[in-house]
Amino acid sequence: MPEERVDRRLAAIMAADIAAYSRLMGADEEGTLRRLKAHRKELVDAKITEHRGRIVKTTGDGMLVEFVSVVDAVRCAVDIQRGMLERDADLPTDNRIRFRIGINVGDIIIDSGDIFGDGVNVAARLEGLADPGGIMVSSVVHDQVRDKLSFGFEDLGEQEV
Amino acid sequence: MPEERVDRRLAAIMAADIAAYSRLMGADEEGTLRRLKAHRKELVDAKITEHRGRIVKTTGDGMLVEFVSVVDAVRCAVDIQRGMLERDADLPTDNRIRFRIGINVGDIIIDSGDIFGDGVNVAARLEGLADPGGIMVSSVVHDQVRDKLSFGFEDLGEQEV
Repeated sequence: MPEERVDRRLAAIMAADIAAYSRLMGADEEGTLRRLKAHRKELVDAKITEHRGRIVKTTGDGMLVEFVSVVDAVRCAVDIQRGMLERDADLPTDNRIRFRIGINVGDIIIDSGDIFGDGVNVAARLEGLADPGGIMVSSVVHDQVRDKLSFGFEDLGEQEV
Repeated sequence: MPEERVDRRLAAIMAADIAAYSRLMGADEEGTLRRLKAHRKELVDAKITEHRGRIVKTTGDGMLVEFVSVVDAVRCAVDIQRGMLERDADLPTDNRIRFRIGINVGDIIIDSGDIFGDGVNVAARLEGLADPGGIMVSSVVHDQVRDKLSFGFEDLGEQEV
């Protein structure tokens, strides 16, 4: 039986979610949603558009975005994290909305606008390992951007993701 | 001074050239060119199109091709090498046209249809290391395709390219 051809492409995948989302919602549901909506509109979505990203899907507090370039994906993530730090600077630490972001590169499968594959799963697992306000990238992302961007990277070594 | 934005994208880059091209041309210039033209038309270009590749440029005996997917690039290279083996099977070994192929993944810069960057340079250096009729891939290519394709890979370890 011939192998069915699937639509594949190389992409940089960014997975993001909000740290301590349940706690924030438990403390102030309407306020958290309102602030999140403003962050999305004024910062996150604008930065994603600027860096030619495509929002694949959003969940309650999560977001999956694909980029055509790794450099764009990392720049976007840094812009978002820096922007969030400024926007919530006046709030007590416990009230701040802070994203955790994971970035990976993969040869992904595209089907009906959604994306699938190891590359996507690993991005989600990297996100889970990121500190609130931080960005965790895979070694292939690091290899692709280390000579192209002026950000510092902290090497966390081999981690099973 | 703000950093100038350049057009970047992730791509799989295939560099190919013909092994012992000068010798083949020295022995039979017109015949070699005629056969090369037929291989290009009937096999190479057809396979590149089939796997959604774009020929960025051709030199005398060389070719630079970009693909949107690593899996596509590797499949295309394997199809070309298998096809060449069949097409020249009846010729004496010394007369066979044999490609050397290098494949890499990179976040490349696109300018006026041409592509630039480390990712391109490394593909060309991998091509130089490939055996005639063979394919040399970088470790990032291998990581992306090993679970997705049924071809065998021989690990040549860390090589300075």
